[in-house]
Amino acid sequence: MKNQAIMFDRLGGPEVLHVAEFDEPEPGPGEVCIRCTSAGLNRAELLFREGHYLRMPDLPSRSGKEAGGIVEAICPGVTRFKPGDRVGSLPGMLDESRQGAVARYVTAPERLFVHTPSSVSDADAGGIWMQYLTAWGALQFVNKCGEGQNVVICAASSSVGIAAIQIANMFGATAIATTTSAAKVEPLRALGASHVIDVTDGDYLPRIREISSGRGADIVFDPVGGPMLSEHLEACRPEGWYFLYGLLDTRAMTLPAGPLIGKNLHVRGYTVFTLLQHDQATAAAVHGISEGLDSGKLGLHVDRYFPLEETAAAHRYMAANAHLGKIIINP
Amino acid sequence: MKNQAIMFDRLGGPEVLHVAEFDEPEPGPGEVCIRCTSAGLNRAELLFREGHYLRMPDLPSRSGKEAGGIVEAICPGVTRFKPGDRVGSLPGMLDESRQGAVARYVTAPERLFVHTPSSVSDADAGGIWMQYLTAWGALQFVNKCGEGQNVVICAASSSVGIAAIQIANMFGATAIATTTSAAKVEPLRALGASHVIDVTDGDYLPRIREISSGRGADIVFDPVGGPMLSEHLEACRPEGWYFLYGLLDTRAMTLPAGPLIGKNLHVRGYTVFTLLQHDQATAAAVHGISEGLDSGKLGLHVDRYFPLEETAAAHRYMAANAHLGKIIINP
Repeated sequence: MKNQAIMFDRLGGPEVLHVAEFDEPEPGPGEVCIRCTSAGLNRAELLFREGHYLRMPDLPSRSGKEAGGIVEAICPGVTRFKPGDRVGSLPGMLDESRQGAVARYVTAPERLFVHTPSSVSDADAGGIWMQYLTAWGALQFVNKCGEGQNVVICAASSSVGIAAIQIANMFGATAIATTTSAAKVEPLRALGASHVIDVTDGDYLPRIREISSGRGADIVFDPVGGPMLSEHLEACRPEGWYFLYGLLDTRAMTLPAGPLIGKNLHVRGYTVFTLLQHDQATAAAVHGISEGLDSGKLGLHVDRYFPLEETAAAHRYMAANAHLGKIIINP
Repeated sequence: MKNQAIMFDRLGGPEVLHVAEFDEPEPGPGEVCIRCTSAGLNRAELLFREGHYLRMPDLPSRSGKEAGGIVEAICPGVTRFKPGDRVGSLPGMLDESRQGAVARYVTAPERLFVHTPSSVSDADAGGIWMQYLTAWGALQFVNKCGEGQNVVICAASSSVGIAAIQIANMFGATAIATTTSAAKVEPLRALGASHVIDVTDGDYLPRIREISSGRGADIVFDPVGGPMLSEHLEACRPEGWYFLYGLLDTRAMTLPAGPLIGKNLHVRGYTVFTLLQHDQATAAAVHGISEGLDSGKLGLHVDRYFPLEETAAAHRYMAANAHLGKIIINP
C-alpha cells in the first residue's frame, strides 16, 4: 500500500520537513493500520525535529505523536477494533520516527488506540487525547479536584491548559488561569476560566489570596517552571499540590524550603505516563473524557487546521506562540 | 501547687537556661496536670531557645516539646484519663513557652495526651512520640512502605532516623541509612539498617543502584536538604517519593527538573502535622506504634539521660552532634 508522510532526514528547523512517498508495510500481528484523518500538533514534535526532545529521532524520521482516523486494516490477534471503526492513538505511545502521525496511514499495535467519542469529528479525532488525558491524569487521577477547590492553571492558553480549565469546571472546582499575554485574558475567560491573572502585572499572589479568601490554591498545574516556582509555592494552601509538567522557562529553579516544609506541600513532577501506565485508570479516564465531550461539558477548542503539505507552516505557527487551543494537521 | 521548670528570660545559648520555682495554676476545664517524669529533647528546642525556630518564645519562657509522666489531677470535662494514668504528649502540640515539658508538672488540654505503651518506662515516656509519629506519618500515612521497597533514611542517627529504620523493618522494607560520620556506620547497622552509606565517601548513587539492582529508591526520607537534593532525586525510582522534613543543610536547593518530570517524582515537604491533623489516622498510628513497642518490633534507643538541673548540659550535648538516638531529661 502506498503511503505519504511528513519526514525529515536531518535535524533542524521547519524547513527540514518534507512529504515522502513509500510503501507502507502490512500490519503485523496485533497491529492495526488506520487511515489518518487528523494529527494533533504538540510542542514536543518541534523539539523532536530539532533533536532537543527526550528521545532522539531515528533518521530518516517521520513526525507526529497523535493520530486519529478510521481503521483500514487489522491483523489477526486484534480484538477491539474492526475496519471502519473511528479511533485515536493514546498520547506519547507512537514510535514517532516509524509510526509518526502526520501521514496518510499509520500502523501501530492495537493497545495504542482507543475509540473516538461519537461527538468528535474525523477531522478532530487526532487532537483530543493528549491534552484531555494529561489534564485528567493530574486533576482526577493523581489528585481529585472538586467543589470548593481552587485550581491555578498556568500558561492556560495551551491545549492542555484549556482542557484543564474544562475538567476543573466539570468537577465543580474554580479554574484560575494565568497568562503572560494581556490579549489572552478575555479569550481565556470566554473559554471557561473563572478568573484570569496576567502574571506580567506582578499581582499574582495578591490575586490568589483575594480569590481564595486568603486560603491559597489547592492545586497549581504548571508547564512553565523557572524562578516563579517560589511564588507558586507561596500561592499554595497548606498540604496543597504543585504539578510541574513542562519547562517552558528553562532557567534554574530554587526550591523554597520554608513554604515546602512549613505547609507540607507536594511538588509533583508530572507527565501523562503516570496515568497511562495504569490500564484501568486510563480506561476510566477515556470513558470520563468521552462522556464529557459527548455531553458538551468538555469541548475541543481548535485554533487552526493545516493540510499535510503545510506541516512546516503549522510548526512555524506553533513556535510563534500566538495560538489559543489546538493546532491540527489533516492528512 | 509548687512547680519547678527550666526557664529562660532572654534568647541565647544554653547558659540562659535556669531552674525557676513558681505556683502552677490549677488545671482549667478539659485540662490534665501530669507529674512529668520524662521530657525528650529535640533540636527544635535548641532553635527555640536561640529565637531561630518557626515560633518565637514568649519570654520568660519554659522549654521542652515532649512530656511524659503520670496524671496528677484532672478537671471536669476530661473523659479519657484519670489520676495515676501513664501518659505522654503528642509531638509539637504543647505551647512550649507556657506548657514546656522540662518541668516537674505540666498542665495542658486532654487532647494533647495519649496513653503510654505498657512496655515503655516512666523514664522514657516523654521520649517516644515525636520520632515514631514523625516517621510513621511519612512511611505509613502519606506513603506506605512495605515488602520489596527500598527506603533511604538520611542522617539516620537521629531519633527520627532510628525510628524510621525500625518502621521500615517492621513493614518488611529495606532500610538504607546514610550518615556523614564513619564512626556511625557500624552502630547504624547494629540498630537495624540493612545498608549504611557514608555519603562523604562520594559513592551514594552507585551504592543505591547496586542495592536496588538498578531500580532506584522507592522513598528517600531526608532531614538535611541542601545541594544533595539533586543526588536524592537521581536516586529515586520512577514515581518515587522524596520527603524533606528538616533543613540541617541551610544552603539553597536547586530543584532538578529533569529527573523530577522525567520520572514523575513526588517531592514532599513534611512535618508530623500532616498526620496529627487527622484524628483517626493519629489514633491508628499511636495504636500501631504501641503494638510495635510492646511486641519488640520497635524499640526506643536512648543515648543519654539528664536530670532537670542539667538541661543546659543536655542542650550542649545535642549541639555537639555526637549522640546516637534519643536524649531524655528526667525532671
